Amino acid sequence: MINTTSRRKIEHLKLCAESPVEARGVNAGFEDVTLIHRALPELNMDELDLSVDFLGKGMQAPFLIASITGGHPDTLPVNAALAAAAEELGVGIGVGSQRAAIDDPAQEDSFRVVRDKAPGAFVYGNVGAAQIRQYGVEGVEKLIEMIDADALAIHLNFLQEAIQPEGDRDATGCLDMIAEICSVLKTPVIVKETGAGVSREDAILLHKAGVSAIDVGGVGGTSWAGVEVYRAKESKDSVSERLGELFWDFGIPTVASLIESRVSLPLIATGGVRTGLDIAKSLALGASAASAALPFVGPSLEGRESVVKVLSRMLDEFRAAMFLCGCANIKALHNSPVVV
Amino acid sequence: MINTTSRRKIEHLKLCAESPVEARGVNAGFEDVTLIHRALPELNMDELDLSVDFLGKGMQAPFLIASITGGHPDTLPVNAALAAAAEELGVGIGVGSQRAAIDDPAQEDSFRVVRDKAPGAFVYGNVGAAQIRQYGVEGVEKLIEMIDADALAIHLNFLQEAIQPEGDRDATGCLDMIAEICSVLKTPVIVKETGAGVSREDAILLHKAGVSAIDVGGVGGTSWAGVEVYRAKESKDSVSERLGELFWDFGIPTVASLIESRVSLPLIATGGVRTGLDIAKSLALGASAASAALPFVGPSLEGRESVVKVLSRMLDEFRAAMFLCGCANIKALHNSPVVV
Amino acid sequence: MINTTSRRKIEHLKLCAESPVEARGVNAGFEDVTLIHRALPELNMDELDLSVDFLGKGMQAPFLIASITGGHPDTLPVNAALAAAAEELGVGIGVGSQRAAIDDPAQEDSFRVVRDKAPGAFVYGNVGAAQIRQYGVEGVEKLIEMIDADALAIHLNFLQEAIQPEGDRDATGCLDMIAEICSVLKTPVIVKETGAGVSREDAILLHKAGVSAIDVGGVGGTSWAGVEVYRAKESKDSVSERLGELFWDFGIPTVASLIESRVSLPLIATGGVRTGLDIAKSLALGASAASAALPFVGPSLEGRESVVKVLSRMLDEFRAAMFLCGCANIKALHNSPVVV
Amino acid sequence: MINTTSRRKIEHLKLCAESPVEARGVNAGFEDVTLIHRALPELNMDELDLSVDFLGKGMQAPFLIASITGGHPDTLPVNAALAAAAEELGVGIGVGSQRAAIDDPAQEDSFRVVRDKAPGAFVYGNVGAAQIRQYGVEGVEKLIEMIDADALAIHLNFLQEAIQPEGDRDATGCLDMIAEICSVLKTPVIVKETGAGVSREDAILLHKAGVSAIDVGGVGGTSWAGVEVYRAKESKDSVSERLGELFWDFGIPTVASLIESRVSLPLIATGGVRTGLDIAKSLALGASAASAALPFVGPSLEGRESVVKVLSRMLDEFRAAMFLCGCANIKALHNSPVVV
Ligand SMILES: Cc1cc2nc3c(=O)[nH]c(=O)nc-3n(C[C@H](O)[C@H](O)[C@H](O)COP(=O)(O)O)c2cc1C
Ligand SMILES: Cc1cc2nc3c(=O)[nH]c(=O)nc-3n(C[C@H](O)[C@H](O)[C@H](O)COP(=O)(O)O)c2cc1C
Ligand SMILES: Cc1cc2nc3c(=O)[nH]c(=O)nc-3n(C[C@H](O)[C@H](O)[C@H](O)COP(=O)(O)O)c2cc1C
Ligand SMILES: Cc1cc2nc3c(=O)[nH]c(=O)nc-3n(C[C@H](O)[C@H](O)[C@H](O)COP(=O)(O)O)c2cc1C
Repeated sequence: MINTTSRRKIEHLKLCAESPVEARGVNAGFEDVTLIHRALPELNMDELDLSVDFLGKGMQAPFLIASITGGHPDTLPVNAALAAAAEELGVGIGVGSQRAAIDDPAQEDSFRVVRDKAPGAFVYGNVGAAQIRQYGVEGVEKLIEMIDADALAIHLNFLQEAIQPEGDRDATGCLDMIAEICSVLKTPVIVKETGAGVSREDAILLHKAGVSAIDVGGVGGTSWAGVEVYRAKESKDSVSERLGELFWDFGIPTVASLIESRVSLPLIATGGVRTGLDIAKSLALGASAASAALPFVGPSLEGRESVVKVLSRMLDEFRAAMFLCGCANIKALHNSPVVV
Repeated sequence: MINTTSRRKIEHLKLCAESPVEARGVNAGFEDVTLIHRALPELNMDELDLSVDFLGKGMQAPFLIASITGGHPDTLPVNAALAAAAEELGVGIGVGSQRAAIDDPAQEDSFRVVRDKAPGAFVYGNVGAAQIRQYGVEGVEKLIEMIDADALAIHLNFLQEAIQPEGDRDATGCLDMIAEICSVLKTPVIVKETGAGVSREDAILLHKAGVSAIDVGGVGGTSWAGVEVYRAKESKDSVSERLGELFWDFGIPTVASLIESRVSLPLIATGGVRTGLDIAKSLALGASAASAALPFVGPSLEGRESVVKVLSRMLDEFRAAMFLCGCANIKALHNSPVVV
Repeated sequence: MINTTSRRKIEHLKLCAESPVEARGVNAGFEDVTLIHRALPELNMDELDLSVDFLGKGMQAPFLIASITGGHPDTLPVNAALAAAAEELGVGIGVGSQRAAIDDPAQEDSFRVVRDKAPGAFVYGNVGAAQIRQYGVEGVEKLIEMIDADALAIHLNFLQEAIQPEGDRDATGCLDMIAEICSVLKTPVIVKETGAGVSREDAILLHKAGVSAIDVGGVGGTSWAGVEVYRAKESKDSVSERLGELFWDFGIPTVASLIESRVSLPLIATGGVRTGLDIAKSLALGASAASAALPFVGPSLEGRESVVKVLSRMLDEFRAAMFLCGCANIKALHNSPVVV
Repeated sequence: MINTTSRRKIEHLKLCAESPVEARGVNAGFEDVTLIHRALPELNMDELDLSVDFLGKGMQAPFLIASITGGHPDTLPVNAALAAAAEELGVGIGVGSQRAAIDDPAQEDSFRVVRDKAPGAFVYGNVGAAQIRQYGVEGVEKLIEMIDADALAIHLNFLQEAIQPEGDRDATGCLDMIAEICSVLKTPVIVKETGAGVSREDAILLHKAGVSAIDVGGVGGTSWAGVEVYRAKESKDSVSERLGELFWDFGIPTVASLIESRVSLPLIATGGVRTGLDIAKSLALGASAASAALPFVGPSLEGRESVVKVLSRMLDEFRAAMFLCGCANIKALHNSPVVV
């Protein structure tokens, strides 16, 4: 049986790698953000300092590979490829939802491989907001231990739940559980939207709940309503298909969400981050780091080298952007002017 | 003879169902309205309360099937289908202009079927502003009794009259007659534009005239100038055709008219309402309810089930929108922020 | 010889009638002007009063056929057709530049026919600003007598002169001569741009010079730089062709010019006026009248009936616009709100 | 060996002449600048005074052929053609980077020809900001003597350096060296961006460093990142190719840079200046002169006459623009209003 579901999991990754699953009528907003060119940077581009401290751990650049997968044997090499690349280039990495490993401990290996291959990297665990109500603090602690995580991401994806016929549409009690976990857990907690963005009001509530960072996960990149459209088409569920179509671009674009969510918490810019220019713009707008998932999905199916290639390109672009904006380090980039 | 005109009436419905009769260069404005996504809705989507009280009567959702037809034997099954669907899903419904039943009482059945099939629904009657000058208060009372109406809609369509070669272009005295009817009638009076929108000045005049609600009927959906273009083409009347082309998009878009018409009267948002997102946006902008005609025209020719399908889809979309905006009930939606 | 040049004159009219000579990348601005729909006009459309008094003479509608032609035998029937239509519908009419009749008195008939066919209409004469320096007040008086003109239009077309290889590029002394003519002449003087618009500064200077009215002749309709492109192509003059291309849309759009030129003088809105909606918008923006040339060029080659057809259509559209904006007369239209 | 590199140099000119190397998604901004048409210019177009004094030398029009080439025998006729045209029409001219002549004195002739063919023109030398650190003041003085230059342009092109695999990415110390050169040199120093624009902050630093003029060299014309894309494609360097694609339009558009750089220094508007209207707009926005390179590249390969033709066209267009804006001389143009 595992063989079938595993294959489906891989097929799901392939869907994201091969079909257009990104926002269609809206973009993340990076096009509307302009960095200011410095004709006289007065810097040596080969000596820029891209390193940051993120939630207490050093990273060689303010970037993370966002949560993608895990939970089935076939995802192990995928996670291994992603983790090895992250380790090589000194960036952070998240695992996909660890629910499958709770349901079936045999699947833990596909998550553990991330820490194995990225012993020095900032690694974060992943669990859904709906699940934490069930697991409680202890369940959540297991997830952290499983991969010796530097942080735990609690993901929010109620847009997807609202569209899936089998979705969990009860969103009550999540905030209280987040607050409880934050008050008990030693490990930092990131609350992470997955493509519909975080509003100012939610950011304020999360701040009060005691989270350590917010991943704004805005509109402009992978659309989970969009992914559901493909799933609905396959299962000939025309109701979910139309619902997914209508909500394909629903939510707050990444750049708008970054600006809305400034509540003196570290922010991760995710959703449609595709180039080093987008990373630079995110940081100039106040984010502590940026992350992306979709650009790594295809390469992760090919192996470590392919992931390294994409990741290097983005970091090279990021370095060029810093140089051309006259920023010697990340602090300078944070203080750098932008036109929105 | 009835057979010929009846067939024409049905053919008219088919025209609206099959040809592009909507505004072309302008839209209703819903695209410019953004609802704010709540990543943490803290609600159970299956327990949202969509019910409203509208002009003294309860509805299970703030939506109405707008005035469409009646007045010929062939329209009876059409109205039956619409009414049965409205009853099933607990929304309101209007009948088409009752003029034909005044001219020929034999046609009353095609209107009465609405109340028969929707005994519990909010049902409104319909008469043109030009006609009320003729019928007087008593004539109007008959229309209400005919379908045991919960309200009477007096429709305004001078744009169409100005384009039709046979149109009634005398618009004098309508306002006084509206005021008289409002002062005498016990049943609430809705004044209803049919696709060119209500301006602030008209809304103020209607408020003073004592109407109970305004249906803004703005530009963005069915264009009556557009419908006249098709009619003129068929009768090779090139003058009306050009006039219809020029005024196809004339008037105030629905969203603009909603904002203009805020004069402390209940508002119905009509004109280009096509999805549950549009309903949600209308209510967030201050409307008490939304309504639509065109999306139901085609299905109504097929029967109750087809109408139920479209109506259910719109209400499901509306429910998802409320959930994702963190609104437990209609009052919360009214207070929900929007970006225009 | 006359036959050749006459034929050229007619060919010139044909060029304007058949080739795209209008502004390309810019429009007159009417699309950005919105009239406010009145759902309850409280008027009888068949009893609207469109009449105006313009520079001391009554017109049945605030519209004129702008200066087009004259000066060659073949233009006589063209002017006859235009004039008869103007007379029939009670609008004003201008003649083309009367220079040819000064150079050769035999050509006077082609201008005189306008007054012959339009004995009751507001008729205006036409002369270039460059010519008046030569003709002096007396020369100009002859032009007025020639057609018993109600006003004299002095046209400005230095954009065209700057592009034509043979153009008169000396624009000095025009303003003084205009002032002198205004101070001596009994007949009202209109200063009339021909497609590049009048700026605020020019409007102020013209006001001081004592002119009776300004025809803003803005960008958005016939482009004289554009017409020169065709001429240059034919004569294989690539320098003028490129110059014409570059300046095709140069100048101030009609609507912008109308707003700029408000200096308490009667304004005529010309340049891209194509429909009765444009006329209504012009008047709502403050113009005393609107005029157009291009829409009548093709019909004038066919005869009176064709001109009447186009003119009637525009006036019918204008009447519908007034009705739907709740304006009983031109004064009401002047006071009617617009959104720009 | 010279034959090979020379041919490459010419091939490089051909690349710029034949392939689309300009900004793609952004323009220089001239489309957003509107000159105000004067219907009554009150000028004689044949008597306009276009002459200016630029950095102490007279020019017959405020325009320069920007730095293009030199440094190989095959570029000598190219520079000869450009210089002869500049001399004929009385505009300024710059030479390409003189580095090649420092490396190999045999190449000096290809630069000297500019002064030979343009004895009366404003001629400026050219050196990279990275090179001056090496050459020192004395080296730089030699460059000036080489062509008896009226000014020396120090060019900034760190965007290109950041993209070239072999690029010089050390930008430190340039500003100090510029300041030193300015304090010692008698000849005026122009600091010249080459297509990514000068920001306000850089303009202020350059002002403090004592430069005599700034050439803003903004986005909108030739893109050096774009040129690198072609080079990378040929050498199958996909990393540089993608980097070049991403930064193709990076930087500050010419018009924005002109406005940003107003620091009471003479400004040259370069980058996408293509017509005489662009020159007029540049001056109305405050530039002391405009310049362009790309429009002359193709013609310079054909010879003097072709360059004269393009240059004459631009100056004719400029003259027409001044006439139609009522500007008798350059001072009037500087004071002329523009709408941005
Ligand atoms: C194939 C795939 C699987 C994902 N799985 C998870 C997940 O399990 N948990 C999670 O929090 N986010 C998950 N995400 C969301 C991403 O972490 C990220 O928030 C989102 O894709 C937006 O970023 P992008 O536009 O760069 O893809 C997944 C994304 C993709 C493409
Ligand atoms: C086929 C058809 C017939 C209609 N007949 C009437 C009518 O008799 N009375 C009326 O007030 N409105 C009538 N309407 C107008 C609608 O009630 C509604 O105001 C208008 O169509 C705009 O809504 P929509 O864009 O959703 O179609 C009719 C609309 C359609 C499409
Ligand atoms: C064929 C043709 C000939 C014209 N001749 C004259 C003329 O002699 N004198 C003049 O003042 N304007 C002349 N005009 C300009 C028009 O009067 C008018 O100002 C201009 O065409 C803009 O209006 P439109 O866009 O409606 O064509 C002519 C226009 C056309 C199309
Ligand atoms: C073929 C070519 C060679 C150039 N070489 C130089 C150079 O050596 N030094 C320099 O300062 N600028 C050089 N430039 C840049 C131009 O001087 C100018 O700043 C830039 O091309 C933008 O202007 P444009 O859009 O009119 O081409 C060169 C441009 C071109 C097209």
